[in-house]
Amino acid sequence: MSGGNREIDALIDVLARLPGLGPRSARRAVLHMIRRREALMSPLARTMAHVAETARECTRCGNISTAETCPVCADPARSTGEICVVEDVADLWAMERGGAFAGRYHVLGGTLSALDAVGPEDLGIPKLVARVREEEISEVILALNATVDGQTTAHYIAEALADTGARLTSLAQGVPIGGELDYLDDGTIQAALAARKAF
Amino acid sequence: MSGGNREIDALIDVLARLPGLGPRSARRAVLHMIRRREALMSPLARTMAHVAETARECTRCGNISTAETCPVCADPARSTGEICVVEDVADLWAMERGGAFAGRYHVLGGTLSALDAVGPEDLGIPKLVARVREEEISEVILALNATVDGQTTAHYIAEALADTGARLTSLAQGVPIGGELDYLDDGTIQAALAARKAF
Repeated sequence: MSGGNREIDALIDVLARLPGLGPRSARRAVLHMIRRREALMSPLARTMAHVAETARECTRCGNISTAETCPVCADPARSTGEICVVEDVADLWAMERGGAFAGRYHVLGGTLSALDAVGPEDLGIPKLVARVREEEISEVILALNATVDGQTTAHYIAEALADTGARLTSLAQGVPIGGELDYLDDGTIQAALAARKAF
Repeated sequence: MSGGNREIDALIDVLARLPGLGPRSARRAVLHMIRRREALMSPLARTMAHVAETARECTRCGNISTAETCPVCADPARSTGEICVVEDVADLWAMERGGAFAGRYHVLGGTLSALDAVGPEDLGIPKLVARVREEEISEVILALNATVDGQTTAHYIAEALADTGARLTSLAQGVPIGGELDYLDDGTIQAALAARKAF
C-alpha cells in the first residue's frame, strides 16, 4: 500500500520488477509520469502498446525490431560476407552503437549450458552453419562474452563451422580504452600482456 | 541508433529520461518487455494508459490516486484531527508505507523559494489554514525535509497557523534505526545528542 491506490500500486509493482529498476525508482518514475500524464504518460503507453504488438525477432538474424526483416538484414549494403555472432540482442545493439561493424549478425539468444539443458539447436547453431554456406560468408566474428559459457559456446561454433571455409575470428581482449590498470582484474591484465603489440 | 528501429529507439529514449533510469537500464527494460510482450508489455501499456487517464490530485489533500477523493481522505476512520504536512506525494507515500500515521495529509508540492518564485499560494498554504479551521484540526505535524528550504517553509507555515489553536509538531531528528554513527553526517549527530533522552 503506497497511499495512492490499487491501480497505481499495481503499475509501480510491475515497473519495479523490470531489470534495472527497483521499488524506489519505479515510484519516482510513476509520479513523474503522472505529473506529465498528457505530454508523457499517454504517448508512452501508446508507443509501448504499439511496440508490444509489432516487435518481433528477425527471421534471419534474431535481432528484434518492428519489421519482419530487421534494419540490419534489410540493408543491402551490409551484405559484406561477414557475420558477427553475439549471445544476445543487447550485445547486437551494443555493437551497432559502436558503429564499427558493417556486416550482419547472428543472435544466439544464450550460451550452451548442460545445466540448463540448452543445446546447439536452441541457439540456432545449425541455422548459423546453413547461413554461412548460403550467404557465402567469408568471415565469422565470434563476439561472445569472455565468460566460461561464452567461450565454451565459441569453441563449439568454431568446430561446427570448421569445414565451411569461413575464416573465424574473435574480438581482441585487452585493456579497455580509458581503462586504468589498477582497476582491472588479473585475467584482463594477463590477456593484454600476452597480446602485446609493437608500440 | 540501437540496431532495433525507430519505434523501439524512441521507446528507449523516453524511458531513459525517466528519473531513476538511464540509457542502459531503459534498453534492458525494453528488451525484457519485448520478450514478454503478451504477458507483460501489453497489459503494462494498458495499465499505464488507464492510470494516465484517471490519475488526479485529491481535491482535499493533493495526494495522487485514480479517484477524485484519495483513499486516505475517503476513509472516515482517518478523521483523527491530525494533519501531516509533506512536501511531495512521494513523501506521503513513504509515510503511508511506514504505517505509523492514522490521520490525513496536506501535500505542498514543493517548498517556498524566492529564487524559483514559489510563494505561499503556490503551495496551498492558505488552503491548509482553511482546512485546519474547517476540519477542527488539533495537531499539525510538519514532516518537511530537513533541508534549508524545507525548514524555512516549516517556519512560515507555523506562523500562518499560529492563531488557529492547533498544536504544531515536527518529526524527531536523530540516528536512523540501524544507522551507524560512523556513517552519519555531523549535523545528525549534533541533533541526536541535543535531543538525547533517558535510557
